[in-house]
Amino acid sequence: MDDEPLKPAAANGLLDRRLFLKAGLTGSATLLMARAGAAEREPWMMAPGAGMSESSAPSRFETHIRRTNIQSQPGTTGSGASRTPLQHLDGIITPSRVHFERHHAGIPDIDPSRHQLMIHGMVRRPLSFSVEALDRYPKISRIQFLECSGNSRNQIAPEPVPARCSAIHGLLSASEWGGVPLSTLLDEAGVDPRARWIVARGADAAVMARSVPLEKALDDAIVALFQNGERLMPANGYPMRLFLPGWEGNTSVKWLRSIEVADRPAMTREETSKYSDLQNDGTARLFTFEMGVKSVITSPSPGLEMGAPGIYQISGLAWSGAAAIRRVEVSADAGKSWADAALDAPVLPKCLTRFRAAWQWNGGPAVILSRATDQNGAVQPTRSSALKGRASNTTYHYNGIQAWRISEDGEVHNVYV
Amino acid sequence: MDDEPLKPAAANGLLDRRLFLKAGLTGSATLLMARAGAAEREPWMMAPGAGMSESSAPSRFETHIRRTNIQSQPGTTGSGASRTPLQHLDGIITPSRVHFERHHAGIPDIDPSRHQLMIHGMVRRPLSFSVEALDRYPKISRIQFLECSGNSRNQIAPEPVPARCSAIHGLLSASEWGGVPLSTLLDEAGVDPRARWIVARGADAAVMARSVPLEKALDDAIVALFQNGERLMPANGYPMRLFLPGWEGNTSVKWLRSIEVADRPAMTREETSKYSDLQNDGTARLFTFEMGVKSVITSPSPGLEMGAPGIYQISGLAWSGAAAIRRVEVSADAGKSWADAALDAPVLPKCLTRFRAAWQWNGGPAVILSRATDQNGAVQPTRSSALKGRASNTTYHYNGIQAWRISEDGEVHNVYV
Repeated sequence: MDDEPLKPAAANGLLDRRLFLKAGLTGSATLLMARAGAAEREPWMMAPGAGMSESSAPSRFETHIRRTNIQSQPGTTGSGASRTPLQHLDGIITPSRVHFERHHAGIPDIDPSRHQLMIHGMVRRPLSFSVEALDRYPKISRIQFLECSGNSRNQIAPEPVPARCSAIHGLLSASEWGGVPLSTLLDEAGVDPRARWIVARGADAAVMARSVPLEKALDDAIVALFQNGERLMPANGYPMRLFLPGWEGNTSVKWLRSIEVADRPAMTREETSKYSDLQNDGTARLFTFEMGVKSVITSPSPGLEMGAPGIYQISGLAWSGAAAIRRVEVSADAGKSWADAALDAPVLPKCLTRFRAAWQWNGGPAVILSRATDQNGAVQPTRSSALKGRASNTTYHYNGIQAWRISEDGEVHNVYV
Repeated sequence: MDDEPLKPAAANGLLDRRLFLKAGLTGSATLLMARAGAAEREPWMMAPGAGMSESSAPSRFETHIRRTNIQSQPGTTGSGASRTPLQHLDGIITPSRVHFERHHAGIPDIDPSRHQLMIHGMVRRPLSFSVEALDRYPKISRIQFLECSGNSRNQIAPEPVPARCSAIHGLLSASEWGGVPLSTLLDEAGVDPRARWIVARGADAAVMARSVPLEKALDDAIVALFQNGERLMPANGYPMRLFLPGWEGNTSVKWLRSIEVADRPAMTREETSKYSDLQNDGTARLFTFEMGVKSVITSPSPGLEMGAPGIYQISGLAWSGAAAIRRVEVSADAGKSWADAALDAPVLPKCLTRFRAAWQWNGGPAVILSRATDQNGAVQPTRSSALKGRASNTTYHYNGIQAWRISEDGEVHNVYV
């Protein structure tokens, strides 16, 4: 292969997937002989380092890996959001310490020995479950994403905001979630055949409350106790939360305190005033639970500057609330031509999927995009398609294609195409 | 199903898998009406909680989730091990802060802007790679286990040690590992066709060094830069480590400094004096890289006491260095009868697999076991089979079946069967 020219897969430098794993491409390695001092002994090689400990922390050189864009709503305590630093991460797992936050009355400091989950309403036997009780039930764990339905909302602004990937798309994380299938607990309580909904309520001071169709509750909903192998972080619902795979994050009620079984939704503030989608025709869509098919390039992205021209990895995340990702395409010419990206295994349903493509940047301006397709055949829309029919102040469920413009000086900016 | 008697899948209370998800089993839920004060408002429900932050930490009620059994070798600094608290975790991901440690000269405090990986020896072009250079290469990420080949070594003692699961089996963790395929880098350097081995060396003060067949280096080896989505923990090789899926942990050289391409192994101390397996006939097995098929029940296990008789979840981990897990069986009568356990999806090659079974504990004494089979058909051996032919002081690659005895008072102990 060494003497073959690089074969483009799409215009402006996107390389064929066969070349993705071929060598000699980046030009970023240094010939060892040419580098004086390459065999120098660094100080950390000359003396024993730190010993074992009870807990590891990231390197002191990685202190920039933290949640960003922490926004508190004026006049409130603990109402707001913080975002996952997507542009500094790789793979699909989000370290629990930087899982995004969205709280309505802060993080309750719950004593797990006093917390109870009550199941009541249209059931034969109203029941109460302690953490210890739930721990005896058969559990399940799965790796799945959680996305706030307000994620990427600043992309509806008429002009593109100058912001980093985390500021735009960072209300998105993925974890291994472990807990008890809600169907098991509802079965134990004995659901009235006339019931159609559940209403989940949190133990936070805002009493976060959402109505969920019984069908979803009996399908893949769990009462989650574990996140990435350990007990939930307090910011993610410790000691227990509802987890509804693929649905808008706000329905996965944190610090879960009660589940009322009912024949109708509760029409809470969080499903009428908020988390509903006003349309141009004056109507509003309620209960738009499922998150759409979506993707974003995390590297390169704003704040990560390009170096010299040459080969770069384009890498990002794709996901769908309905199914697994089937395909991700990338473009380096603002959408005129597209090439398939490689997907890291395993590609899981309702989970983030990491995609990668090799790109020969010639040092000129370029606009890079990604476009996801899920196993149901749903294709991520362009920005204009995604906004079509929506009222201009509707900020939920935006899943349009993200464009980043690379300038000749290697800077990366948010743009609309 | 409510009126059907529980059908055992094996003796002493192991329930059929069809019952695994059925309700009314544990008896640990409380009838809500019978519980005075169930609707009491706890203090954390009465006022807003803590606000958003740059980083989450576990709840103050979970401070016992930390590495344990920290053993430093006498007369050394930073040589020893610490263990993952397997009995407190669920799912398959190990939080990076409690990934097990095994160091030979402590944890070097490496400045990533100064660290270089050199590839030299039998190559056309000796090359040097900075972290920044590697970041431009096409990467891959996969969820896989890492196990020290000395894990579970105290099970070779003539009498069972009174120890917790973490103390016996905690040199075992699983992470999403992300990095550059080593084959890409070797390809770029141009491997001499006569080469058969690589020798990987670390930047720690012990210059940890291991020889690895070139075939493995070109197969699924990576130079890992990421662990569970973020940069490696310093204790796990920051800023880069070799990662050899399924092979004894010690070959996945941390703080990777150089890879020498060679036509023979280096015969380092770590592959002759150590990490070799002395046999009863006086010979020693060298280069026994692959970790065998193995499993352990993490709950119940010593230190986790049983409550009242009733239904419990038996849960644990199974893995194989050769392939994915095909099957895990559990026994509650010391191996006389066995029932299939359920496996959490996804079941990945060279990764931990979480298994679960429902068990009706009648309050009497019981001995519980698990037995794993991998996709190659390899079956986890009994303790006596696992020890057969080994010299009595050989402590690597022990993968015998683990037995826990439950006594009438609900305590759990390590026993041999």
